Amino acid sequence: MKHKNRSAYDNRNLTLLVDFYELTMSNGYFRQGMRDQIAVYDMFFRKVPDEGGFAIMAGLEQVIEYLSNLRFSDDELAYLSDQDIFAPEFIDYLRNFEFRCDVWAIPEGTPIFPGEPIVRVRGPIIQAQLIETMILLTINHQSLIATKTNRICRAAQGRTILEFGTRRAQGYDAANYGARAAYIGGAGASANTWSDLRFGVPADGTMAHSWVQSFGSEYEAFAAYARTYPDRCSLLVDTYNTLKSGVPNAIKVAKEILEPMGKRLAGIRLDSGDIAYLSKKARRMLNEAGLNDCKIFASNSLDERIIRSLLIQNAEVDIFGVGEKLITAASSPVFGGVYKLVALIESDGSITPKIKLSDTFEKVTTPGFKDVWRLYEAGDNHPLADVLTLPHEFIEDNAPYEIFDPLEPSKRKTVTNFYAKKLLVPIFEKGELVYDAPDLESIRAFSKKQVSELWDEVTRLENPHQYYVDLSQGLWDLKTNMLREIRSYVQSIK
Amino acid sequence: MKHKNRSAYDNRNLTLLVDFYELTMSNGYFRQGMRDQIAVYDMFFRKVPDEGGFAIMAGLEQVIEYLSNLRFSDDELAYLSDQDIFAPEFIDYLRNFEFRCDVWAIPEGTPIFPGEPIVRVRGPIIQAQLIETMILLTINHQSLIATKTNRICRAAQGRTILEFGTRRAQGYDAANYGARAAYIGGAGASANTWSDLRFGVPADGTMAHSWVQSFGSEYEAFAAYARTYPDRCSLLVDTYNTLKSGVPNAIKVAKEILEPMGKRLAGIRLDSGDIAYLSKKARRMLNEAGLNDCKIFASNSLDERIIRSLLIQNAEVDIFGVGEKLITAASSPVFGGVYKLVALIESDGSITPKIKLSDTFEKVTTPGFKDVWRLYEAGDNHPLADVLTLPHEFIEDNAPYEIFDPLEPSKRKTVTNFYAKKLLVPIFEKGELVYDAPDLESIRAFSKKQVSELWDEVTRLENPHQYYVDLSQGLWDLKTNMLREIRSYVQSIK
Repeated sequence: MKHKNRSAYDNRNLTLLVDFYELTMSNGYFRQGMRDQIAVYDMFFRKVPDEGGFAIMAGLEQVIEYLSNLRFSDDELAYLSDQDIFAPEFIDYLRNFEFRCDVWAIPEGTPIFPGEPIVRVRGPIIQAQLIETMILLTINHQSLIATKTNRICRAAQGRTILEFGTRRAQGYDAANYGARAAYIGGAGASANTWSDLRFGVPADGTMAHSWVQSFGSEYEAFAAYARTYPDRCSLLVDTYNTLKSGVPNAIKVAKEILEPMGKRLAGIRLDSGDIAYLSKKARRMLNEAGLNDCKIFASNSLDERIIRSLLIQNAEVDIFGVGEKLITAASSPVFGGVYKLVALIESDGSITPKIKLSDTFEKVTTPGFKDVWRLYEAGDNHPLADVLTLPHEFIEDNAPYEIFDPLEPSKRKTVTNFYAKKLLVPIFEKGELVYDAPDLESIRAFSKKQVSELWDEVTRLENPHQYYVDLSQGLWDLKTNMLREIRSYVQSIK
Repeated sequence: MKHKNRSAYDNRNLTLLVDFYELTMSNGYFRQGMRDQIAVYDMFFRKVPDEGGFAIMAGLEQVIEYLSNLRFSDDELAYLSDQDIFAPEFIDYLRNFEFRCDVWAIPEGTPIFPGEPIVRVRGPIIQAQLIETMILLTINHQSLIATKTNRICRAAQGRTILEFGTRRAQGYDAANYGARAAYIGGAGASANTWSDLRFGVPADGTMAHSWVQSFGSEYEAFAAYARTYPDRCSLLVDTYNTLKSGVPNAIKVAKEILEPMGKRLAGIRLDSGDIAYLSKKARRMLNEAGLNDCKIFASNSLDERIIRSLLIQNAEVDIFGVGEKLITAASSPVFGGVYKLVALIESDGSITPKIKLSDTFEKVTTPGFKDVWRLYEAGDNHPLADVLTLPHEFIEDNAPYEIFDPLEPSKRKTVTNFYAKKLLVPIFEKGELVYDAPDLESIRAFSKKQVSELWDEVTRLENPHQYYVDLSQGLWDLKTNMLREIRSYVQSIK
């Protein structure tokens, strides 16, 4: 892809973008003689934002960039030394830092569900701990925006969504990587030019009110724009009065300026007022003038709820520009991914699973080194359920397989006529990149297909069916046994 | 300041982080022969997030960095040329881009109110338009986080707030600049190490559950930590059971490991369960063990509402770690600053004010090149009101001055015994930086003082008094006359 190597636009040093406690813990492990201890961590999330039925994995490419370039500069090492709490030997370890972990992840664009590992890291505990912050930060942000955008796209029922939130994003990266994630989630373009240069997310836009105000009249402003951009002339029609001034002037320019040049008016944009009413009126006026091919854009604090409401009212909108509510995922602005220790690997290679307690079973972590399988209905490819398994367990295609609800294990169902795929793919092996990351267009197309294969009950915006993320019988037994053991130990404390 | 020149940590090229329409409009102005047209733009906002009584200005330093380094690289120019819509002469103009605008802004840390210019730009329309996106993006983000953090600090009534949201921020900048903004807003430290290196925001933290899980027992984990960090030993006590296991083990480590070294247990952290109940119980246990000086940290989805509720319940918490709800301003995650054309300057120097209509008077922009004055009560320095004035208007200290509500102009009040200050200060003059930006500690101290001088009625969290942002009589007349004129013109369209 022509945009793939423009990483010069983001050559910051983010090595110290790390929670300070990762460093103090790593130094602690080092000083406790645990530098060669191998640990396994899972990243997973507990809730889909907006109470949706699924999320969309995004951000892996940036995790790869980060892990591929993880170095400590002299300046950073000097800063750490100045803190007077890090062992000189630990500083030396960082100076000679060589990433040696194994990393697996679910590919970008894949629908993901609560409770399943979406990233798995195995390696020296110091390293695996140190990278927690950036893995969470990167995946949490981009998955949040891809997931939100996909909701908005689903509400728009095939109409184009433009990501217009750059100016209201939570910082530069929120605008830049947010545009990337929105594209994965289904947006057709972004207002942001940087993300076009860097990632090939098409940049688009119309005009601001200031353009209209800078000329003697609205007509002059439209005429000047039409002469400058005859092939892409979209006019903002609400500066004075949409139906009395804006649309008539747009039509006049289409007739008097564009048609003599053999050009057509590409679009008009509504940015205030009652979009349902105005769009229907404007559509009629445009059609009566023979401008049936002129698109109607709408913007102004849109989100999936308002878009759905507009379409229920038969609003005549072809393209929605969605700003702040997309780029901040305003109605649910946190993707709560966590990164938990799930196992230690002993020097003989045996696995000691680790569990984190909680008062409710849903919040107890699932221990052990695990795989994630997705079971698809043979024939129509609908995903049936995801199943987490222990390393020695294998799910064979079409062989009867019993799945059950881990919260209600008596709810059981035997599936046949399915095929199963492991979702976690190798990204790094002993620190070496082994994954050939797909380009952004491929990720977007892959995501679209994956989402289209989900049951409608999972993709609906409200009260979706809760997709099953089940545990194998072996894993369920391991978890409940560990839980019982720890609880009875706590019980026994006088 | 030792951190001030570490900008190498952020030497990205963000020139194309710009809404595409800024470029198409700029090219349009260029082609319409308007490259030397001087225009005036105001940035202002309409609503305080969370329906608060005021916001806190933040982000100016990053705006200055951006404007000081605004250049188009060959690569960027090639990208623009490839779009086939920009005039070669315009590309040349960008190649030789020299920033020549005047910029004024309200200093960082200042309480700001809806409807007043917080940034004012005067310069060639092409340039002033082009910088819209980055000015809005930068100020919107940092002001959002500074404002939110200040709410949280006010709820904590003097207790320390730690910004712990790095992993849930909306991208890297949201974590990095968010930590900076949180510090301006009153946070005492951040989990993020980068913002310490770069800005001197103190980095802090305790330990993760994974530390506790990595050892054979909770006691061993605590003991190892105490040996590693005897001078800053804060222990996370909720991995197994806070009151039965965590707190007793912490006390044991204080007695058996730290006291023999002549050290004290610095703190314990509660991260789950009923914080009000657990903190009171834990406080009693610590005190009974003679550990009255051990601080209690609390974290777990806190925000200003939960902190206030905890304090009403007399929770024994000394330090609050606030994560995702601070760093995303979750309850109100958008700072809606806008950037509007307010005047054109004619070649003879005369000012043509510009107005943007709306259905409601509150949303009509205030036209003209304007100043912002803050009137302070003489003696106790409480701000009384802000007043926007035309260039020839001057507000004299102590001379009787009549202020009135622009939405209800019959509500009038004459103030005396006050002094007045202009809030907008020069930042760039003809593109030259003329502002000596204060360091972060000074901004934070300045903000604290400014907020302390506001009336309690303005700073309360709910239903605050609406601080007055008034227009001078001259400005009000200008606005209402322009409005009447345009409305009667629209009325006249058949």
